[in-house]
Amino acid sequence: MIKETETTAVVDGHDGMGQVIGHKAMSMAIEKAKKYGMGMVVVRNSCHYGIAGYYTSMATKAGCIGMTGTNARPTVAPTFGVEGAFGTNPLTLGVPTDEAFDFNFDCATSITQNGKLEYYERIGHELADGTVVGPDGKAVTGDAGAALKRIGSGDAALTPVGGIGEELGGYKGYGFAMFVEFLSAVLQDGHYGKALTGKGAGGEKVPFGLGHFFIAIDTEHFLGEDLCRKKAGDIIREVRSTKKAPGAERIYTAGEKEYEIRLARHAGVPINESVQKEFIAVRDELGLDYKFPFED
Amino acid sequence: MIKETETTAVVDGHDGMGQVIGHKAMSMAIEKAKKYGMGMVVVRNSCHYGIAGYYTSMATKAGCIGMTGTNARPTVAPTFGVEGAFGTNPLTLGVPTDEAFDFNFDCATSITQNGKLEYYERIGHELADGTVVGPDGKAVTGDAGAALKRIGSGDAALTPVGGIGEELGGYKGYGFAMFVEFLSAVLQDGHYGKALTGKGAGGEKVPFGLGHFFIAIDTEHFLGEDLCRKKAGDIIREVRSTKKAPGAERIYTAGEKEYEIRLARHAGVPINESVQKEFIAVRDELGLDYKFPFED
Repeated sequence: MIKETETTAVVDGHDGMGQVIGHKAMSMAIEKAKKYGMGMVVVRNSCHYGIAGYYTSMATKAGCIGMTGTNARPTVAPTFGVEGAFGTNPLTLGVPTDEAFDFNFDCATSITQNGKLEYYERIGHELADGTVVGPDGKAVTGDAGAALKRIGSGDAALTPVGGIGEELGGYKGYGFAMFVEFLSAVLQDGHYGKALTGKGAGGEKVPFGLGHFFIAIDTEHFLGEDLCRKKAGDIIREVRSTKKAPGAERIYTAGEKEYEIRLARHAGVPINESVQKEFIAVRDELGLDYKFPFED
Repeated sequence: MIKETETTAVVDGHDGMGQVIGHKAMSMAIEKAKKYGMGMVVVRNSCHYGIAGYYTSMATKAGCIGMTGTNARPTVAPTFGVEGAFGTNPLTLGVPTDEAFDFNFDCATSITQNGKLEYYERIGHELADGTVVGPDGKAVTGDAGAALKRIGSGDAALTPVGGIGEELGGYKGYGFAMFVEFLSAVLQDGHYGKALTGKGAGGEKVPFGLGHFFIAIDTEHFLGEDLCRKKAGDIIREVRSTKKAPGAERIYTAGEKEYEIRLARHAGVPINESVQKEFIAVRDELGLDYKFPFED
């Protein structure tokens, strides 16, 4: 701990595990919020902290509004830029509701992110137009795996939500990303931007030195958790009940698909063909005597 | 005042002027932040509060991180929806910097908004593809004035940042808009969504009953205002210095264009042809003996 006040704290992660640091930091923010109404803990020298929405769900379970974000390896270009200047910087927001799941909205401020491109590569899905920008300022299209390699080598970059240029609001995703970049470094004297490559001068692996922030706001310090949950649920239900596009069965709210998938996973986790092949390859490499159920 | 704690307050605006209520509320949030580290004031029963970025700039001038948002007349459709379910709900964020202007990022969570469509109508600019959705779930294109009328009558809706559907991240703009919708109503027991039309059951004008929220976070309760300003400036300068798209002269950061326009306006405010005609029409209607400089 570098500094602590009633509502705030600055934590040095000493390059430890992001998930452990994140859990500790959001717990502190919630504790402060329960006591003083609000709490904010900022972290420096951490690593990838896993699922950002997990931390906001800690807050919503405790009856708090939750916010979190983290910087990341620079892979996203600003508006009018073609080089990765900041990370996929999620701006993650949670609100307690009276539904079976709270509102936990966890997304990168870029249109897509590296993990999704890896998934697209596995399943052979092509890039959506405008999600990756090349050095010519135009959209990189086609094979997701090839695009990933180009992003890794600095020959292409992800685009902020709103896409390339200003016409469809690319500067909005860019602005949200910058806010996350600031809150991940400026209050805690942390690293940012191009320093977050995870590589040293000689190309050797070094700690990422990421920064995160965690905010909790206690609903009981306003008009109460019950009211908050009820009204948030009412808003969600009203939005869901509005007119759907022809062919659209449902209007979802944040966390809804994830909640249903979670329930469905009790029956088992589907493994796609590409991953099945990797399982088989590892088994064969190790010469193990085992047959996977999916080999039938 | 309905309720107040060290860091929080709930204010009823009694349908007064949004700008006055907003100024008071952000001033309270800043005062709380200076004392306790953080402050959040939520408002109900207010009206249009003007430029959201003005309130975050109050915070940044005081050495605080600032956040604000407001709900608005329902004109924006959720992902897979075609009906206005919530407003253009700006999520507005401010960070103090050591540049000539602070980072004040003020934008609607929809791609575009009604005021911009009115401007497009004046200058004869067509709609960008995907900014407005029709009842068929497809983009409304062409004349901005015609689209505005359809939005007003409920026959079309604005789209969230990321556009129609999920492919380019439309659910991200939708998620940010929902967060603003929640914070504008659930902590202060305010109105939301379809209740915010400004019209009564018989079509008569009634107060809008809008809700807002204002958050201030004092940098001195972390590692200090000087460090925050310096690092935020460093981040901005690094981003600006990254590789530009061919033909792009500069990479801007939030508030930069507005700052330069403000300086340029000391030499005079340009008035476009459409507004010139309105000026002339008003003069002629009133029979005034005056010649405008732009009539030369």
